Parts: sequence; structure tokens; C-alpha cells
Amino acid sequence: MEKTAGSRLKYLTELLIQSYMTHEEIIKIDSSNILNRSRVIDIVEKLRSLIFPGYFGKKNISASSVEYYTGDMLEEVAYVLQEQIARSLYYSSAYAGLGKEIIAGKADDICFQFLSRLPEVREHLAADVSAAYDGDPAAYSLDEIISSYPGIYAITVYRLAHILYELAVPLIPRILTEHAHGVTGIDIHPGAVIGHHFFIDHGTGVVIGETTVIGNYVKIYQGVTLGGLSTRGGQTLKGVKRHPTIENHVTIYSGASILGGATVIGEGVVIGSNAFVTKSIPEKTKVSVKNPELQYKLDDQRRSEKEELDQNAFWDWVI
Amino acid sequence: MEKTAGSRLKYLTELLIQSYMTHEEIIKIDSSNILNRSRVIDIVEKLRSLIFPGYFGKKNISASSVEYYTGDMLEEVAYVLQEQIARSLYYSSAYAGLGKEIIAGKADDICFQFLSRLPEVREHLAADVSAAYDGDPAAYSLDEIISSYPGIYAITVYRLAHILYELAVPLIPRILTEHAHGVTGIDIHPGAVIGHHFFIDHGTGVVIGETTVIGNYVKIYQGVTLGGLSTRGGQTLKGVKRHPTIENHVTIYSGASILGGATVIGEGVVIGSNAFVTKSIPEKTKVSVKNPELQYKLDDQRRSEKEELDQNAFWDWVI
Amino acid sequence: MEKTAGSRLKYLTELLIQSYMTHEEIIKIDSSNILNRSRVIDIVEKLRSLIFPGYFGKKNISASSVEYYTGDMLEEVAYVLQEQIARSLYYSSAYAGLGKEIIAGKADDICFQFLSRLPEVREHLAADVSAAYDGDPAAYSLDEIISSYPGIYAITVYRLAHILYELAVPLIPRILTEHAHGVTGIDIHPGAVIGHHFFIDHGTGVVIGETTVIGNYVKIYQGVTLGGLSTRGGQTLKGVKRHPTIENHVTIYSGASILGGATVIGEGVVIGSNAFVTKSIPEKTKVSVKNPELQYKLDDQRRSEKEELDQNAFWDWVI
Repeated sequence: MEKTAGSRLKYLTELLIQSYMTHEEIIKIDSSNILNRSRVIDIVEKLRSLIFPGYFGKKNISASSVEYYTGDMLEEVAYVLQEQIARSLYYSSAYAGLGKEIIAGKADDICFQFLSRLPEVREHLAADVSAAYDGDPAAYSLDEIISSYPGIYAITVYRLAHILYELAVPLIPRILTEHAHGVTGIDIHPGAVIGHHFFIDHGTGVVIGETTVIGNYVKIYQGVTLGGLSTRGGQTLKGVKRHPTIENHVTIYSGASILGGATVIGEGVVIGSNAFVTKSIPEKTKVSVKNPELQYKLDDQRRSEKEELDQNAFWDWVI
Repeated sequence: MEKTAGSRLKYLTELLIQSYMTHEEIIKIDSSNILNRSRVIDIVEKLRSLIFPGYFGKKNISASSVEYYTGDMLEEVAYVLQEQIARSLYYSSAYAGLGKEIIAGKADDICFQFLSRLPEVREHLAADVSAAYDGDPAAYSLDEIISSYPGIYAITVYRLAHILYELAVPLIPRILTEHAHGVTGIDIHPGAVIGHHFFIDHGTGVVIGETTVIGNYVKIYQGVTLGGLSTRGGQTLKGVKRHPTIENHVTIYSGASILGGATVIGEGVVIGSNAFVTKSIPEKTKVSVKNPELQYKLDDQRRSEKEELDQNAFWDWVI
Repeated sequence: MEKTAGSRLKYLTELLIQSYMTHEEIIKIDSSNILNRSRVIDIVEKLRSLIFPGYFGKKNISASSVEYYTGDMLEEVAYVLQEQIARSLYYSSAYAGLGKEIIAGKADDICFQFLSRLPEVREHLAADVSAAYDGDPAAYSLDEIISSYPGIYAITVYRLAHILYELAVPLIPRILTEHAHGVTGIDIHPGAVIGHHFFIDHGTGVVIGETTVIGNYVKIYQGVTLGGLSTRGGQTLKGVKRHPTIENHVTIYSGASILGGATVIGEGVVIGSNAFVTKSIPEKTKVSVKNPELQYKLDDQRRSEKEELDQNAFWDWVI
């Protein structure tokens, strides 16, 4: 900004400082404990290379080097994660007033508990990957699934974030799942409880709410919402079960919405595309939408030959 | 590319050069004024750290340092933004034939006007953040909302892009909102006019068209389209109001489509999930879809016990 | 991790190593041929700057320098791409047991064939860009479309990935399209066959399955699925045509689903928003949903004035 640059800059700076004083609620000043979002997200990539060794790390791993590799990587992760967890604890009333030392210690323990559960995360993800392979004719190999499927990425990040959520770590779990949401279009709240052999195909637009409970061998498609019926209660609804329960071996096709904390989808149920379900469904039921009738309009010279195209007979197909 | 590498390379280069000559419309040669997309996007992150100081900047800000910090950051932003705006002006017929000096001056003024409006942007965003907190039982703190909610990210970028759009800056506004679209799945055209206390929950799949007008205290969910009825008119429709008007205190649930430039959704209206609305709705009305009937199919041994599950009684729930 | 850090780290490392031995299917050890995902994605950006010269490259290109620029960039791309293709071939049974030299040679040839088809890609993309301009009243210039439209980004990456798919390169095609899926929310399988003048508006949530065939001058909107009817057959369905065929000059509005490998959408057909189509549609037909009836609820003092708002008359509008 040429010539008057100096004065303009001074003017703009004063304007902003005034604005800071008017809206302090969206400022973080004198906090030495700001989370470093990019570092937190960086940890995810390192954790993925610990979970799927050899897939995401830069360097090739040999049988002989794997132990050193793992040790090094774990130390790196632990160092950064412990620090970010410590910072996050300052956001929690539960830790209010505690000294730097004590909080560092707590963060250390939480970090350790978290990392001890990585084998459990791998256990689940191995099952999720095989579910993806079995469930998707377009999948050519486990390699392809691990290295490119958004569903696997979102579920990996969710499984990590969920453990931190269980350990009552503030902010970080949501930062992780919202990062995955940005990368994949799949929005899984870290509070959701999800069993093994979980497969999300395509995934864009999937929403899984905070109090959702999902069993094992569940398969869902793009645009599926597992949500609340209404959130107009706002903060008064905090902690209330607002999202559905999905039992084992349920398949939910694209665009279906299943809403409400009292809604239970029984074992083995199949929900057809675009179904809007707000009540419980008994086990082994197949639910499909009697699809809105389609209207056909042919150009005049062909109006005669207009044959009846019944669209509701797609029943046997979708389910 | 071993052995024949040289000759192959020569051949491939010639192929491409020929292709460049055949399709010059998708080339930019001899333009010293190409926008640097990554720089433009980089500015967004710097502006966010000016709007929410302490949240996104790398370094911690103290009460004493905030003025210097702000001044420095503003200078940085102004420097890059002024240059990119200058480059963008070469894309506008309104500036055709003007000299480098004059265009630089215009860019300088536009940049100044833009930055002077940052306090107004903060004013709106402070309201948007509090609307998010009040509206979402899953929100744990303002910190969480500011640091991880995609809706807030998309609205922040939109509010900045909209001012540049009002200042008739070419290209940059759309580059900014499409960047946010990529990050969040929320597609807000910079031309849309949106009031304060605006909240987008989850957000993936939201589309808000160029001529949409949205009042204050409006809340929308994932998959909502505020769009045109048909765009088969193509460029002939430029400038025409093609998208709806949403008045104050309206809530629009997931998957609803509201289409058409003459469509006005009155104050206090609530639109249920998946509603498809192409006509105006009077104020204080609650609109919901008589949901497509669901069909149930039980495995034979249980067909007997099939009870009527009426799905249309969800009315009182959704609204 | 203070004090007990050492022992904790040792413990955690052993835990993970055990876990690696239990789930070897999700490990890649002693493979010197791991694809480098970030390098593969990096190639996309370089290829875009070869396809749209002057738009994405860092440096400005002059008529005199374009040949050198192109040669240099091609050499760079060829070098990295050839290596990554070679690595990918180790994932394919077709190349099992072949020596490093032979595989390098094959990779070299594939890379050459791929790059020789860049002019064809430009041919198609020039048509796609003009289709976007003609079809979208919100588009201000070709520059805007090339530099910011997610549809163009997704189609560009698809067109490149599809050639690699035709050349039977493993993994890389899907890594590319899933990268674009992450960036744009548009999920196009590299196996799909798509003609010229293809336009995707907004795009978030679009899914185009592996065996989809799309003609020329086709236009689709956000949330459109071109999918399979059911994938419960899993891997047994591999290779079977599971996704629809869309003929020339078809328009498909937002949220419509067209499913099934036997489903053919005839030339010039228009499909309205949210239509769910599982059967073939004859040419020149306009299909729209008889939209689910809307229910209105006014607050008591206004219940009297409740007028009939017929929502099914939107027919003439949407189509």
C-alpha cells in the first residue's frame, strides 16, 4: 500500500484493536496454552503410519528395522501429543487451577493410556478393511482400500478420536474428526460408539451424531444421516441420547435418514435408499420407500407411444 | 525414461505445443498478471488469525504485543492482497487499457476498503459463533466451534469473499469460496447476501446460490440447497434473481431444497427434512413432507407378527 | 513423557510389534516398492499446469519460453510418474516375478503412452470448460471456471486417471480420483467412461460408479448418484456392469439417483431433482418426481387463513 500506506495501516490497526475490545469472546489473548491445530493433525498422519506400517511412512520398513522405526515414531508422537493434550486440559473446568506440573503429569498418563490402545484400534481397523473389501465389487485390493478409501480414513481418525473422547480430552477429538470430515465429507462425532467390521462406501454427506450407537458388521452409504429429530432444545439437550441405535448386520443405503435417540434399528435390518425413519424397526426387517411416483412427459409426436413405466416395482431390486 | 527418452520427450513436447495452438482458449500465455491461487488462499488463513486473534496464529499473543502483532499481520496481508487484487483487475473489462500505475492505485484503494470492513466481519462472526453454540447440543465451547466447526470456516470465508464481490474484484471471491467449499463441502456463492447469527450444522452438501438473500438468525443443516429452478437459460440468466429469499428466524432441516428467485420463506418458518419447496411460504408456518410411505418386508416366519408401523406420524417430532 | 518415559515407551513398542504380528494383512514390510501417495498427487498438479499452461504453474509463461517450459515440466512428470508406475506394477499379478529391469521398461512404455494422450485430454477439457460456461449463469469467465470450479478439477483428474485405468495401472488411478473426491466431494471411479462437454455443477455428493457410461453434452448437479442397485454380491459382482448408461444431451438435476447396469437414460432426457430411477427411460422424455405432499401448520391465530398451497404444480418449473 503505497504513499499513505503508513497512515492507512495505523488507522486499520486501531480499528481492529477497538473491535477486539468489543468482541473479546472470540479472542484468545495471554493464553500460553493454545492448541496448535496443525500439530494435532500432523499426529494423525504419524499414527496412521503406526497403525498401517509401511503404507504411509516415507521410508521403507524392513523386518529388522520395524522395532526401531516403531519406537522412534512412538516417541515422536508421544512427545507432541502429550504437549497438545496438556494444552487442551486448560480448556477443561475439571483441571481448573491445577499447576503446570500436575497438568503435565495428567497429560502424560492420558497420552500413555491412549497409545496403549493402538493395538485395539488396529484390531478394529483390520476388520473394517476386510469389510470394505468384501462389501465393494469396485475394490481391487486391501492396498487400494488402505491407501485410498475415504471411509477407511474417516473411520481410522474416528477410532483414534473416540479414545481421546473417552479419556475426556477437550477439543482435540473434535478437531481430529472435523479434519477427517474436511478430507472425506464424512462427519462422525467422536462421541459415537461404533463396532468392528464397519464400512462406509463413498461416504460424502454421511453424518453420525454424538450419541449414536452402532453394532458390528454395519454398512452405510453416501448421504446417510444418523441424527437427532430436532435440536431446537440447543444446549438443554446436552448429554441426552438424541441419535439412533443401529444393531449388528444392518445395511443402510444412500440418502436414508434415521433420526431420534429412541429409534432402534434391529439386527439384520436393511434400509432402502432415501428412507426417512423416525421409529424403531424390528430385527430382520427390510424397509424401503414406496418411491414418489414419477411423472413422464414425452414430446408430442411420441406422446401416443407413452407406455406405463411403473417405478414402484423396484422393490425386489433395492432390497 | 531410459534410452529413447530424449526422442520421446521431444515428440511429446511437440504434441503438446500443437495442442496448445489448437485450444488457446484454455491457455494463459504472456500474461504477467496471473493470480497466484495459493497466495490468495494463504491470505485467508492470515485474515482468520486477525479475526480470531490467538486461535490460528502460530505465536501466542499478549495484551502488550497484540497491537504490534496486528500491525505486522495487517501489513503482510495488505502487501500480498493488494498485489493479487491488482492482478485480478486485469481480468475485468472495467479496467481494460488502464496503466500499471493506475491499476495498482485502484487495487490499493480496494484493498484498504476491504480491510476497513474487518471489524464488521468480526461483528457478524461473533454472532455466528454464539448462534452455533446456542443451536448445537454437541458443542462444548466457543473454542471448539471457532477451531473446528466447518460451518464457521465456510461462513468466515464467505463473509470476506462477499466484501470483495461487492467491491467488484474479479475471480478472487470465487476462488476463496470454492476453497472453503473444498475444505467444508459447503458451497456459498460470494454474491449471496447473508445476515448475522447464521448457523450451518454439519454442512456437507449445502449449496447457496449467487442471488440468495438470507436474513438474521437463520439455521440450516447438511444437504440444504437454496438454488435455481432451472439453469437451462445459461448465460442469458446472468444477473436475474434465480435463488430464494429466506427471512429472519427461519430453520431449514437437512436435505431440503428451496428453489426459485420468486420464492420467499417468511419470518419464523420451519422447513422439515427433504422438503422440496418452489413457492413462497407465509411467515410462522411449519412445513414438513408427508413422508413417502415405507414398505416393510419381514422374513416369512415372522410375517404374521407384522404390525402397522405408521411413518407419517413423525410430524410432531420433526417440527 | 517424563520419568518412566523409557519403560513406558518400551512397553508401548512391544505392544505394537505384537499387534503387527497378529494383523499382518494391514502391514507392508520389506516392500521396497511402496507407492508414495504424496508424490503421485504432486504429479496431478504438474499435469494440470501442462494441460492449462499459465494457470497453475508458479512462473509466467511467454510464447518464446513455452516450449522449454513444456519440455522441462514433461521431463519432471515423466521421471516421477515412471517410477511410481513401476512401483504400482508390483501390486499386479500380471507382472508377478518379472525382474526390476523389465518392469522399469514396461512402466516406461505405459508412462509414454499415457503422456501421448494429454492432447486428447486437453481436447475433452476444452469442451468441458465451455460447457460449464454455457451452462452456468453464475460463471463470469473461462478463467474463473478453470481456476476455481470443483467440477472441472474432478473431471480433469478423472480424465487422467481413466487413461491410467485403461492402461491397467494398479492403485494410482484410484488414488488420483479419491484425492479429487477429497478436494471436491465428487466421487468419479476411474473406470467410468465419460464423453466430452461434461458439466458437473456444485458437485458435492456426486457419485459415478465404475461401470457407468456417459455420452456427450451431459450435465449433472450436486448429490446425483449413478450407482448400483445393490452391492450385497460384493466381490462376486466384480466386472459386471452394475451402473447405468447415460446417452447424449441428458440433464440430471440435484439429488437424483439412477441405478442399475441395465438402466439406460435415452438421448435428450431430463431427470428432475430427487428422482429415483431404476428402469430405462426412452429418449426425449422429461421425468420428474410427483413430489411428496407438503403439510402446513400455522400458529393458531392464523389457522383460519390457511390457504391450500399445492406443491405438485411445480412440474412446469423444474422441467
